[in-house]
Amino acid sequence: MRSWWGWGTVEDAVTDAEAADLVTRVRAVLPEHDFTDHAPPAPEDLGIAPSRVTPPASLAALCSDDVVDRAAHAHGKAFRDVVRNLLGRLDHVPDLVARPASEQDVVDVLDWCAGAGIPVIPFGGGSSVVGGVEPRFDGPAVTMDLSRLDQVLELDRTSRAARVQAGVFGPHLEDQLRPHDLTLRHFPQSFAFSTLGGWLATRAGGHFATLYTHIDDLTESLRVVTPIGVSESRRLPGSGAGPSPDRLFLGSEGTLGVITEAWVRLQDRPKWQLTASVTFQDYADAVAATRAIAQAGLYPTNCRLLDPTEAFLNAGGTGSVLILGFESADHPVAASLDRALEIAADHGGVAGERKERTWRSSFLRMPYQRDALARRSMIVETFETACTWDRFDAFHGAVMAAAQDAIKRVCGVGLVSCRFTHVYPDGPAPYYGVYAPGRWGSTVEQWDEIKAAVSEAIVGNGGTITHHHAVGRDHQPGYERQRPEVFAEALRATKAALDPAGILNPGVLLTPNGG
Amino acid sequence: MRSWWGWGTVEDAVTDAEAADLVTRVRAVLPEHDFTDHAPPAPEDLGIAPSRVTPPASLAALCSDDVVDRAAHAHGKAFRDVVRNLLGRLDHVPDLVARPASEQDVVDVLDWCAGAGIPVIPFGGGSSVVGGVEPRFDGPAVTMDLSRLDQVLELDRTSRAARVQAGVFGPHLEDQLRPHDLTLRHFPQSFAFSTLGGWLATRAGGHFATLYTHIDDLTESLRVVTPIGVSESRRLPGSGAGPSPDRLFLGSEGTLGVITEAWVRLQDRPKWQLTASVTFQDYADAVAATRAIAQAGLYPTNCRLLDPTEAFLNAGGTGSVLILGFESADHPVAASLDRALEIAADHGGVAGERKERTWRSSFLRMPYQRDALARRSMIVETFETACTWDRFDAFHGAVMAAAQDAIKRVCGVGLVSCRFTHVYPDGPAPYYGVYAPGRWGSTVEQWDEIKAAVSEAIVGNGGTITHHHAVGRDHQPGYERQRPEVFAEALRATKAALDPAGILNPGVLLTPNGG
Repeated sequence: MRSWWGWGTVEDAVTDAEAADLVTRVRAVLPEHDFTDHAPPAPEDLGIAPSRVTPPASLAALCSDDVVDRAAHAHGKAFRDVVRNLLGRLDHVPDLVARPASEQDVVDVLDWCAGAGIPVIPFGGGSSVVGGVEPRFDGPAVTMDLSRLDQVLELDRTSRAARVQAGVFGPHLEDQLRPHDLTLRHFPQSFAFSTLGGWLATRAGGHFATLYTHIDDLTESLRVVTPIGVSESRRLPGSGAGPSPDRLFLGSEGTLGVITEAWVRLQDRPKWQLTASVTFQDYADAVAATRAIAQAGLYPTNCRLLDPTEAFLNAGGTGSVLILGFESADHPVAASLDRALEIAADHGGVAGERKERTWRSSFLRMPYQRDALARRSMIVETFETACTWDRFDAFHGAVMAAAQDAIKRVCGVGLVSCRFTHVYPDGPAPYYGVYAPGRWGSTVEQWDEIKAAVSEAIVGNGGTITHHHAVGRDHQPGYERQRPEVFAEALRATKAALDPAGILNPGVLLTPNGG
Repeated sequence: MRSWWGWGTVEDAVTDAEAADLVTRVRAVLPEHDFTDHAPPAPEDLGIAPSRVTPPASLAALCSDDVVDRAAHAHGKAFRDVVRNLLGRLDHVPDLVARPASEQDVVDVLDWCAGAGIPVIPFGGGSSVVGGVEPRFDGPAVTMDLSRLDQVLELDRTSRAARVQAGVFGPHLEDQLRPHDLTLRHFPQSFAFSTLGGWLATRAGGHFATLYTHIDDLTESLRVVTPIGVSESRRLPGSGAGPSPDRLFLGSEGTLGVITEAWVRLQDRPKWQLTASVTFQDYADAVAATRAIAQAGLYPTNCRLLDPTEAFLNAGGTGSVLILGFESADHPVAASLDRALEIAADHGGVAGERKERTWRSSFLRMPYQRDALARRSMIVETFETACTWDRFDAFHGAVMAAAQDAIKRVCGVGLVSCRFTHVYPDGPAPYYGVYAPGRWGSTVEQWDEIKAAVSEAIVGNGGTITHHHAVGRDHQPGYERQRPEVFAEALRATKAALDPAGILNPGVLLTPNGG
């Protein structure tokens, strides 16, 4: 059963014993903190107003006005979402949750809402951490939950591609591909609780560090229902016919249409896997080694540099740790790992033991731990970006300083860690973790102050407000600063053409004032 | 000195001896053909009307109304362009050629033309083979030749990137990068006579078969002058902040703005290179081998499958030939070639000798040979597309049949050959060559009839009207059929927002009637 307030399922939440262990570990560092556990309220007790919207009879069977259902669709799953749920602060709850069972249902719901002027929020797994699915506006809202559109409709073994409905969750998609010995191999941290359509609409980044890991690159074609009609692009491995139609919808975050299907590029399941960790005493050496590996044309599947804080939190050691992994479905990967380790050694890295597996399970467990700590007034959140290698040192220094200053000001003490989630030949994607003791009832405002400071540092120093978390409502101010104004004009014109009633996910990417 | 009528430079045109040899070889196959050589006319003798446009005094120094200059900018360099030049059929000649020396000049020329309602055709190297730079409309036209903007302005060795002016030609760009031991490594066949801005505006494909070869993937950020202002994106190795601004301008073919600069991703110059050819008696086996190699994660730099006709024309052998190449700046590539050859052998391929070089020079020479044959009434032209592997057999069969039928109908005899220029895990990019005896004075119309037939087969069978030649004016009908209509609406709205006077390259991507 999905948790209405927190990450994932109720069953997979941290157990009491795990929570106690977590508290013991954090208390060792923060003996003064008040670890009182604040259980979530019952949504029925929150005085959520009844739905203001009545669907037409023809769509009534698709629509739920159940209060728990509506509460579970009010927020995404960012720290600030979870805490607001815990506090019962559900200021904007969708009036209806519509669950189309077919593409025609999607068309019909859009037609109805466009005619009635009711905003529609496309909703995949609801794992947004940027306010992407929250009806943060007055007036009615319909959330369109696409999770019933969850089938692999066609599979092309020869080209290794599948036509897939957009509402499928990661595990269910992989279950349907496994009998064919294929995989999408797209594993964002949200994998279990996010959908193909959500990945496409937000330009999700997968777990792997290089090459075919972003959903953009795994997209062969798209089918999108817009208020003015259905857009379907051709299945093409490559095309230079004008600007890419798919790239307009990738990252459109539900503002231009509802993605209903995609042909996606699949891969053979890996047969060879090797991983090794390398420890560096000096972070600058570790960064230089990571850069050299990223520029060597070796294409590691994992190239995750943990700074000393992140490495300590993960494994308790000292120094920076570079986790390297290589995979192939076709050939042994030892030579590639050897060469990467040679480069690392040239920069002073000391390699640990090689293992024949890749690294993922603890990474998928992190959001549950965050929720357990959020209940105990801890501020536990992440933010992410990307920048070119030449500016990384200064950029990272400015971002770390902004985060640490803000944490000190807001919380007195706290930690900031950094890891690279992806590395490109021209730069890394640093991902920061914040851990600080908050005051119960104020942790949202405390986090918002920290977030504003780091966002300013990121955007002010030439980074991107988001590498793979998307824009949503939380990143809109930073997005407006980094986006070329001419492009904003193009987006406004496109929005007006495709969504003339302006019903699709209002407040995202384009805002009445600034965006 | 650039040829006004044909490919490349006057100095590099085929010599009389080469032409005689070429004629001897073709005559062996086509003894009845009339090989009379038709020399190009002098542009001064063609009765080209004087310019109808007078630039403002402030821009006069940038503008040329010289008749040879204007004639040299009237057409691209497709077969039909070259033949029309040879015939003196210059129906639409730009009134002025403006050569901005700075971005401000670009702004000023656009401002003037927008105010005066004069169409502007952005022009890089003029190597378009799709009518992309031809003022194929009545009324005045200004061609904006960007070749004076030819400098590498900044180089970031750490991130391996450079800020480059868009008017630089390929060799001059590489000359400026070589002292830094870096390369863009983007080698379209037009390399010597095309510009960075042209590559970006047309989504050019490089010589290499896989991975970072398309200009799209080598683009870090763009600077574009539009009639409503300058758009500049951030230098980011990756960003998930909304739809990619760069992807709107990539492929916009001069219809939305003039690209003036880009930060491009560079690579280290390769140190290890190995190549080998594999011969297959059966084309289906060769295709299957090529697909398996494309799906193996080996990423060959060359993976060029020549069908029996293409192989015979290139090297005189029998069977299909797969040319494999691997390169690296970091590590030996023998293991990758070994594995690729092993896969090829599994499909019945017989490998030839390995060589430590890659294969390119003859490929760059082809357009000169085409011109020599065009002067002698031969129809020599190419067309290209891409499709998924699952449909390749049927698609290729339909396209070959359409081409052969049309050639038989139009010319009686002739050859069609096919090679793969690029291979993706989900499909190849087939590139077709047509060689047929024409009738002097009619070869444009003869080619147009063949081209219409193959375009119908390509689009009707689910391919793309262009993989890397772009849309221009010649591909507009096919483009309108394959492009989702909803995307056309988005493009129309964007065009109206960014180019409200509609002056930029009219007739390309969007047309008053269909597009």
